[in-house]
Amino acid sequence: MTGRLYGIGVGPGDPELMTLKAVRVLAAVPVVAYPAANDGPSLARSIAAAHIPAGRTEIAIRVPMRAGEPPESVYDAAADAIAAHLEADRDVAVLCEGDPLFYGSFAYLHDRLSAFPATIVPGVTSLSACAAAAARALARREEMLAVLPATLPDAALEARLAEGGAAAIMKVGRHLPRIAALLVRMGLAGDALYVAQASRPEEAVLPLAAALEEGRSGYFATILVGGGGA
Amino acid sequence: MTGRLYGIGVGPGDPELMTLKAVRVLAAVPVVAYPAANDGPSLARSIAAAHIPAGRTEIAIRVPMRAGEPPESVYDAAADAIAAHLEADRDVAVLCEGDPLFYGSFAYLHDRLSAFPATIVPGVTSLSACAAAAARALARREEMLAVLPATLPDAALEARLAEGGAAAIMKVGRHLPRIAALLVRMGLAGDALYVAQASRPEEAVLPLAAALEEGRSGYFATILVGGGGA
Ligand SMILES: C[S@@+](CC[C@H](N)C(=O)[O-])C[C@H]1O[C@@H](n2cnc3c(N)ncnc32)[C@H](O)[C@@H]1O
Ligand SMILES: C[S@@+](CC[C@H](N)C(=O)[O-])C[C@H]1O[C@@H](n2cnc3c(N)ncnc32)[C@H](O)[C@@H]1O
Repeated sequence: MTGRLYGIGVGPGDPELMTLKAVRVLAAVPVVAYPAANDGPSLARSIAAAHIPAGRTEIAIRVPMRAGEPPESVYDAAADAIAAHLEADRDVAVLCEGDPLFYGSFAYLHDRLSAFPATIVPGVTSLSACAAAAARALARREEMLAVLPATLPDAALEARLAEGGAAAIMKVGRHLPRIAALLVRMGLAGDALYVAQASRPEEAVLPLAAALEEGRSGYFATILVGGGGA
Repeated sequence: MTGRLYGIGVGPGDPELMTLKAVRVLAAVPVVAYPAANDGPSLARSIAAAHIPAGRTEIAIRVPMRAGEPPESVYDAAADAIAAHLEADRDVAVLCEGDPLFYGSFAYLHDRLSAFPATIVPGVTSLSACAAAAARALARREEMLAVLPATLPDAALEARLAEGGAAAIMKVGRHLPRIAALLVRMGLAGDALYVAQASRPEEAVLPLAAALEEGRSGYFATILVGGGGA
């Protein structure tokens, strides 16, 4: 017998956007793991805090934030620590912002722990929270929706945006001026919206031009393009 | 004073995938509306049933299912019925499968009711539920993710799929043989998964070839392509 690995989506930030299932699993598991900035707090843990009973074993996965991709060794070590609990027949819940399998680091842990039984509890993505904040559809009817990391080179982004349909550009951060210039060049900036910290107290929805003028550069920002019509 | 319009995502099917916020709002609003098949039950209502107190005013939005897009008149009439409650200062919650703004019909109601204050409660999408069922990432790191309605013509689908990245093909239904042929032609069928009824008792995850062989054709099915690697 081994424990079960749970990948738990805790949603985009508002603790009320956690699911009933996430709350139930968290009440039951003895070990809770979560990514956390080096020496800093864990956003995923803070979202779920009210539902983590006192006295749980906690594993902070220390991820160097905002400077490219974390080294593989971070996930190797975290997987080892989690595996030790699973082998001792203790269930482990890994908390993930938004949905665990939508650009989440849970996939890297899951790759390494595939020998153990696992249950993934899907969560509300930041994308759905951005759309809700903007009160604008992500996509309608037969519209295509392209989800694009802002870290891609201009050529890749342009090729895909040129095909039409709606788009959501994630991981905007310091790429905002470059992405804004690209969207202006393509005639797509007019109705583009910049959404930061969706569902959190600091939530902001701005026309792209206003976000650029304000010099915004936060990590938790997404640009929505189109989605307004068929 | 008017009432407030709530667009409530009830998630992909498992009632436990409702959010705490959806549950709280449903306990409080006097009027609940939901799409329902002609003369049939409402899936969205059945997902939320345990959280709709007895004695609420209910509005079933009768949508002719599975035969192209419903006529605009359906949304006009539903919007009128909802507006009458809002004008009488009664809050109205519109239940939506998955997330209200991800290919949901809530957008059409919201367009017509834009004069009223609105709050959208995002929900877990069927896409996240499909990924969880398949235990496979939708997209990783710098990967693009294309969400594509199967109802699009082959040429549009091929153009986008040819660019690489991960893809999710929704609204598969009776289009399965055509989509499967297209993916085989493009060399993308190998690791494609067919996911039906994700998070529901009837949940099924099959290799695309097996789904084709079984002649599957249900409405609630999505094909996942890629997402396995960087
Ligand atoms: C590594 S991805 C993680 C996505 C997450 N797994 C999800 O399901 O939303 C991080 C990116 O998500 C977007 N993001 C996350 N939370 C957000 C929020 N509350 N508002 C706007 N964008 C957000 C930003 O684009 C950010 O750079
Ligand atoms: C009109 S869209 C609605 C999407 C919904 N608003 C959401 O957020 O998931 C309907 C399509 O979603 C997909 N879908 C909905 N529920 C599903 C489920 N439980 N499993 C697999 N696919 C599903 C199917 O592709 C279906 O044709």
